[in-house]
Amino acid sequence: MARICEDLLFPLNRPADEEGCHWKGGAVATPAGFTGAYATFTEAGWTALTADPEFGGAGLPKLLGFAMEEMVSAANLSFSTYPLLTAGAVNALARHGSPELRARFLPNMVQGVWSGTMCLTEPQCGTDLGLITTRAAPRDGGSYRIDGTKIFVTSGEHDLTENIIHLVLARLPGAPTGTHGISLFLVPKFLVGDEGAPAERNGVVCSSIEKKMGIQGSSTCVLNFEGAVGYLVGEPNRGVRCMFTMMNDARLGVGMQGLGLAQVAYHNAREYARIRLQGRALRGPAFPEQPADPLIVHPDVRRMLLRTKCMVEGMRALAYWVGYHLDLSEHHPDPAARQEGADLVALMTPIVKAFFTDQGFEAANLCVQIHGGHGYIRETGVEQYVRDSRIAQIWEGTNGVQALDLVGRKLPMHNGRLLRRFFHPVAEFLDAHADDPHLGELVALEAKAFGRLQQATATIAERSLRDPEEAGAVATDYLRLFALTAVGFMWLRMAEKARDRLVEAGALPGKIRGGGSSAGVPAATAIADPAPAIVSERNVAFYQAKLTTARFFFTKVLPETSGLLATIMTGAAPVMALDAADF
Amino acid sequence: MARICEDLLFPLNRPADEEGCHWKGGAVATPAGFTGAYATFTEAGWTALTADPEFGGAGLPKLLGFAMEEMVSAANLSFSTYPLLTAGAVNALARHGSPELRARFLPNMVQGVWSGTMCLTEPQCGTDLGLITTRAAPRDGGSYRIDGTKIFVTSGEHDLTENIIHLVLARLPGAPTGTHGISLFLVPKFLVGDEGAPAERNGVVCSSIEKKMGIQGSSTCVLNFEGAVGYLVGEPNRGVRCMFTMMNDARLGVGMQGLGLAQVAYHNAREYARIRLQGRALRGPAFPEQPADPLIVHPDVRRMLLRTKCMVEGMRALAYWVGYHLDLSEHHPDPAARQEGADLVALMTPIVKAFFTDQGFEAANLCVQIHGGHGYIRETGVEQYVRDSRIAQIWEGTNGVQALDLVGRKLPMHNGRLLRRFFHPVAEFLDAHADDPHLGELVALEAKAFGRLQQATATIAERSLRDPEEAGAVATDYLRLFALTAVGFMWLRMAEKARDRLVEAGALPGKIRGGGSSAGVPAATAIADPAPAIVSERNVAFYQAKLTTARFFFTKVLPETSGLLATIMTGAAPVMALDAADF
Repeated sequence: MARICEDLLFPLNRPADEEGCHWKGGAVATPAGFTGAYATFTEAGWTALTADPEFGGAGLPKLLGFAMEEMVSAANLSFSTYPLLTAGAVNALARHGSPELRARFLPNMVQGVWSGTMCLTEPQCGTDLGLITTRAAPRDGGSYRIDGTKIFVTSGEHDLTENIIHLVLARLPGAPTGTHGISLFLVPKFLVGDEGAPAERNGVVCSSIEKKMGIQGSSTCVLNFEGAVGYLVGEPNRGVRCMFTMMNDARLGVGMQGLGLAQVAYHNAREYARIRLQGRALRGPAFPEQPADPLIVHPDVRRMLLRTKCMVEGMRALAYWVGYHLDLSEHHPDPAARQEGADLVALMTPIVKAFFTDQGFEAANLCVQIHGGHGYIRETGVEQYVRDSRIAQIWEGTNGVQALDLVGRKLPMHNGRLLRRFFHPVAEFLDAHADDPHLGELVALEAKAFGRLQQATATIAERSLRDPEEAGAVATDYLRLFALTAVGFMWLRMAEKARDRLVEAGALPGKIRGGGSSAGVPAATAIADPAPAIVSERNVAFYQAKLTTARFFFTKVLPETSGLLATIMTGAAPVMALDAADF
Repeated sequence: MARICEDLLFPLNRPADEEGCHWKGGAVATPAGFTGAYATFTEAGWTALTADPEFGGAGLPKLLGFAMEEMVSAANLSFSTYPLLTAGAVNALARHGSPELRARFLPNMVQGVWSGTMCLTEPQCGTDLGLITTRAAPRDGGSYRIDGTKIFVTSGEHDLTENIIHLVLARLPGAPTGTHGISLFLVPKFLVGDEGAPAERNGVVCSSIEKKMGIQGSSTCVLNFEGAVGYLVGEPNRGVRCMFTMMNDARLGVGMQGLGLAQVAYHNAREYARIRLQGRALRGPAFPEQPADPLIVHPDVRRMLLRTKCMVEGMRALAYWVGYHLDLSEHHPDPAARQEGADLVALMTPIVKAFFTDQGFEAANLCVQIHGGHGYIRETGVEQYVRDSRIAQIWEGTNGVQALDLVGRKLPMHNGRLLRRFFHPVAEFLDAHADDPHLGELVALEAKAFGRLQQATATIAERSLRDPEEAGAVATDYLRLFALTAVGFMWLRMAEKARDRLVEAGALPGKIRGGGSSAGVPAATAIADPAPAIVSERNVAFYQAKLTTARFFFTKVLPETSGLLATIMTGAAPVMALDAADF
């Protein structure tokens, strides 16, 4: 994966931004190099990595898929959209499609020979899917006739695959209004004959592509469906539910886009801060023999770098923790453990999507800021990260919608059962480590944040019973408070591991304490710590850097939670009081 | 000004973003319509608005200039750069130029017939002006020969004026190394004969323009000086000081760019939130007869709008307060009052520059977020605000440099005298209004923030005596804490005025209390409140909206200061501890 990202995808990233996609007569050409890179990517088997072996997938853990998505997004966000959308469509189809649809479409999609899309948005409806007007009418033979226009269809048309499989939300005749009258249909670009090869062209045409702020290599299509042949996926009028299978996967994938952008922005900023000579260290020249010191001596530059570094490492840990539970939810032999895994994933999905993408955008901006004026110039290549990362805060449900999902659905679900999947392991860890000689100070700071999260949760739960606006008005602040506390938990666990290794290496006094390191992992499935390897000198520096970065997170980032709690406690009134005419 | 902005500058904004500037054979053509708009702008006298009547200026208050700069920036940020740079050059020349230079160049610059630039940056030096290598050598007749390359010269070449007057930093032979060996030179594009008309072309050529993230209508030039004729401005080796006259004006002007962008982003977001129908109010349909409710019913959309609204109005008040003191500093008959005005302006300049531009960028992003996917599409026009506003956080000294200016220079200056220009009026106001029946609750919240600012100030002052990195590492957080407290002070004063008017109108019980409303204004010059006009029904709604918006600021924005204080108190160690190799 690293070889493909470094040698193939990353070198195409800047040129694709300059070139963009080309629409001509309904066809879309991706930027130079994309078709070859996509062929290599699929032939190496990466689209099949985590897919079900029944359909030709490698069946590897979803956690590995997260790692792959971070890498691909970092190397080339535009490119990543093609396989990402396909993976979401594969999951929705595997879960809700008939055996016949699955057999006919999934193997080629898993191999990446065909790609997938999700067609939701129409000019009059984005978030509000109840306003969809695309129509589906039954035809002889069990298929449907699809008519309507979809916009903002990512990867809706392109030249990377021999067929494109659209998953389309539409209304059956006489369906109820609103979201309960929407059904999901599979509409292939080319109809697929019984032999499984693409045959005649279906009635779906890309009438234009959008000019956008960024992700120029990703085609964003207007698709006109005119008498297109479609196949029902799942039950009639249950399409939004089916689509949400896809959407939830995609939301985690979008979170990984945020992480990937944060990572590549950090990488660029760090390299520039090391080589660009400008000014002198405040305590006096660090490199008197050079005309100036490198940027990295300056406290404010270090602040920006450390902020990104601690977020990237903390979010990556959180992503893997969620990915691990996603795998548990699908493969654990014990149904209770599967449910626990699924609960945690459901709880964390809006947090991963919204917080990671916010941080991706912030990291891209800090990277530009560290570059100064050079960061604003296209040639330098880092302003592209700002433009590219900006979409991730919007698509697959805006980050405001994620926050509403968290407070309005996930928080009250099953009397708070989902919340306990996070609260219990955190509370246990904090209890077990309160007196830890090395970590106690950091534990105390996390305990403060956790206390704020508990207070905010109880307050919102109580107030929103009376008035749903009490939840809606503080949702974004609450999601951020939750996310910071979750990243803090990850940092404590990383700090604990780092401390243990340093003690082993004799680089820290004391003995290794047990407990806590498997927090959140059901006991039956806790992965045994591998036998401690010899801790090399280089590893000592690595683990010490972990502790130093953890310290930055707890002292310089986490205190934001105090203001978040204060704003949450003031409730909905300040937000709702102003008349719409007085804005 | 409103007519020019609405009818002329705003309609050119989007097309100019698409078209950009054109470089050909050393000449730069601005986007279609710019030359005509510039002619109208200058012929109407706007470039002369605040300039010295001695050189043809109208001599109006600088405060009015701020208002103009906000409007022009909101309508067309790219366009605004041409007059803004000229105004800065005019100020530097008026202050430091010889009588002969002033007489020969200023009248045409004030009229906007000629424009001005500042040429500082070179490939190897941005913030660190000590690294400048452009050379100046004396010639017969008192002029100098200038050789070197400058980059990132805004408005360095264009087709709006018949001449361009460059102010160029360069080194005289044998000058000391570092910033104390830099001198300032005036280098006209066309040499100016004794009759005052542009004559032969000088040795300065625009060899290329940059491709940038935004402000496509503003030319960003590489200028090659080869044997160019230049004239010394001010004393030899004092060029950086002279340039800072220009820079300080420009920093306030850049702050107004941030405000202008925040305002126009807010305006767009508000209109879209009123007309876009999507989803239903959480308490139930607000407009059951429509297919969906407008976005503005949703608490999270209101949160984003109110955040921008309270920032725009608070920053505008702060800008006018600073502008008022700038006028005092120049025109008050009492030298002590002039000094007080100058002190406050010097203190607030980095805050206005950095905080306003951060908020401009945030407002642009919130505007995109409210537009959802449509915000990411170029055609909608709001993603341009993100790309355009981004530069304002960088140029005229990055916002990190502003923060260092605040903690490293302004805070310790004259034993904290500058600080007292802000601290004293705030303390007086808070004392006078602690028991105010209408404002007391808001006053208490501001008092908390002010207490945090005082604690942070004392801590930084004490620690940085030992170690300058203690100031540098917390500078950005401190600037933000200061800015939020300053905007809070403005909101208290606006709330007081609104309350007074509402009491007059009988819309609020109670009687008007004196005191406090002229805080920060030297007693001798306090402007008498005009006789209260009859408060119309519409005005009642306006003043009530002010109080509601103030309440949002104090409950939902200002609490951020608690986290800022906490991070400041943890000092420099977490920022400086990590070895450069371990990033």
